[in-house]
Amino acid sequence: MKQHFNLMLLAFLLSGYFCSGQTVVEDFKPSSLNQPGQEYPQVNSQGYARFQIKAPEAKSVVVSLGLGGAKGGTELSKAENGFWMGTTAGPMDEGFHYYHVTIDGGVFNDPSALNFYGSTRWESGIEIPAQDQDFYALKDVPHGSVQQILFPSKSTNTSRRAYVYTPPSYHKDKSKNYPVLYLQHGWGEDETAWSNQGRVNLIMDNMIAEGKIKPFIVVMTYGMTNEIKYGGLASFKIEPFQTVLVEELIPYVDANFRTNAKQTHRAMAGLSMGGMETKTITINKPEVFSHYALLSGGTYKPEDIKDKSKVKLVFLSCGSKERPDGVKNAVTGLKEAGFNAVSYVSEGTGHEFQTWRRSFKELAPLLFKD
Amino acid sequence: MKQHFNLMLLAFLLSGYFCSGQTVVEDFKPSSLNQPGQEYPQVNSQGYARFQIKAPEAKSVVVSLGLGGAKGGTELSKAENGFWMGTTAGPMDEGFHYYHVTIDGGVFNDPSALNFYGSTRWESGIEIPAQDQDFYALKDVPHGSVQQILFPSKSTNTSRRAYVYTPPSYHKDKSKNYPVLYLQHGWGEDETAWSNQGRVNLIMDNMIAEGKIKPFIVVMTYGMTNEIKYGGLASFKIEPFQTVLVEELIPYVDANFRTNAKQTHRAMAGLSMGGMETKTITINKPEVFSHYALLSGGTYKPEDIKDKSKVKLVFLSCGSKERPDGVKNAVTGLKEAGFNAVSYVSEGTGHEFQTWRRSFKELAPLLFKD
Repeated sequence: MKQHFNLMLLAFLLSGYFCSGQTVVEDFKPSSLNQPGQEYPQVNSQGYARFQIKAPEAKSVVVSLGLGGAKGGTELSKAENGFWMGTTAGPMDEGFHYYHVTIDGGVFNDPSALNFYGSTRWESGIEIPAQDQDFYALKDVPHGSVQQILFPSKSTNTSRRAYVYTPPSYHKDKSKNYPVLYLQHGWGEDETAWSNQGRVNLIMDNMIAEGKIKPFIVVMTYGMTNEIKYGGLASFKIEPFQTVLVEELIPYVDANFRTNAKQTHRAMAGLSMGGMETKTITINKPEVFSHYALLSGGTYKPEDIKDKSKVKLVFLSCGSKERPDGVKNAVTGLKEAGFNAVSYVSEGTGHEFQTWRRSFKELAPLLFKD
Repeated sequence: MKQHFNLMLLAFLLSGYFCSGQTVVEDFKPSSLNQPGQEYPQVNSQGYARFQIKAPEAKSVVVSLGLGGAKGGTELSKAENGFWMGTTAGPMDEGFHYYHVTIDGGVFNDPSALNFYGSTRWESGIEIPAQDQDFYALKDVPHGSVQQILFPSKSTNTSRRAYVYTPPSYHKDKSKNYPVLYLQHGWGEDETAWSNQGRVNLIMDNMIAEGKIKPFIVVMTYGMTNEIKYGGLASFKIEPFQTVLVEELIPYVDANFRTNAKQTHRAMAGLSMGGMETKTITINKPEVFSHYALLSGGTYKPEDIKDKSKVKLVFLSCGSKERPDGVKNAVTGLKEAGFNAVSYVSEGTGHEFQTWRRSFKELAPLLFKD
């Protein structure tokens, strides 16, 4: 009898662990990343997501997002009128998530959602409203521009694409020169990620409007050169991209934009794989960059950096659901060795864009302070 | 017997009419608009398109493009390994086409193709190589930039998006001012269409490199203001968009870019619905624009235009599969009335982007000649 009671208690505790028991509040609204005029997917104030997909003759429709459910996602159920519907089994982390829909065993995007380049393909995106979403909101403030440039690359024998954010003042005060941050995406993403998913242009606009940062230029380019074979991180070599960045893109930007073309006014940052690239290239090229930032992208040891006098800032961050101790301990070590090092941990987020939006917001005021 | 023979002859002639009897050449290559690393869809040298979609458990997979086939498209057949495959029953028109895939009655995009905004949604795109594709190819020439701006719009109480093409020389010679073309998309499209589908930035780069045109700025914005309700062309009123364009966007561009801000150096052009907008706004605002162009977007009569002295160019175009006589006759009438009017007909194309790419190429050298 006692054993039976214990088993029941265990079952009860487990059910509480796996299922929050939370009542789902019926205040669902269309996700801000839906295609124009589309009512679904929807999100509620608790962070649940609800999907609706039309496929009258399908046998099975599964969304790749969600807690519980089959295959780690949310299995939709057939409703009236040929629509399949379903709600995540629990609230999602705040911020941006990629997802896709498996229809009868084939992988497609949700036709109602906008697409974002991640996992080496354009995937559906959904935005779970965050407590702090104001800092990346589109507001009635002066806006900078994001421009696509095609720069010549002899080393890869093509024109390569980059996006350049110039601050609102850039077109007005034509005598001023600006420092530049080179900002890299993660594996499977491309040069569109930081503005589309990261909303970095809006974060810049808002922080400049509030006087929290000095305006600077942000340059985002594709961080791989093996465009045919995707996914080969194991065989990834930094040299080809380092050549594109340091010998081709930076001279092009300095020739075509009003930059302050000194090492002291040039920074490099990256998320995930882009952090790995940032670490390697800043160590290889201390004469090029003075401010280094790794966002969920590893750490530096003091001995990684040969000439401390050339480094003005080392910034390390990640989400609290990643390995925050690694970041904090590395910064402690760097500070003890005399570096200007700063750590940041995003509360309640993992290896996703909400961590990197927040990290960028913490990083920006620390750049180019003098 | 004679009747029987005639019936056989008729059947033979009809089979020749509906089915070209052409042997499909097996030189298929991936479409240039595929997502990175994707082998399908493919196109061959004759203009046939071949599709491959993975959906192991599906009952039916139909691509919306093609000649013949069910529902006006191409029905795919189930092949090995869960893939569905099929080839169009005949060659497609040269150039860009939108398409989608119907899986078990639901409408999705081809996960292997890039998406383009048309029909009020992001749809799959495919490119059928054209004889004249060189003029919109990415080449090793100096490239201008396409920048996204967010301009304040009091009349619609938001920040609105536009794309601004600046020529390669823009960032170099900082003393020069440029004339401006305002260029509008068609119904169901948006401000991304002219650069993504139309490749207008590459056409400009190539023509500038060849010395065929004087550099100018191109501005593309969203031509509707009813962002919630899509598709309501019947109830479309020009005034809200005219206010955005003339009272908000043009002053913003003139304040933030090095423009020649005179009527003589400002043009408006549009395709399809954008042509309708161009016609109405140029007639309403003769003091704002001096060069008018309607691409598959209607015609002007001489009496539409009150003050002939203010109009430097009227350009009318369409595809040969549209109504070329309407365009030609209208230009004859305009010429007789003393206008500098030019017509252009794109051979072998219909109401699609290849017509508009070619039209733009013909239009560009005629703009801002003095």
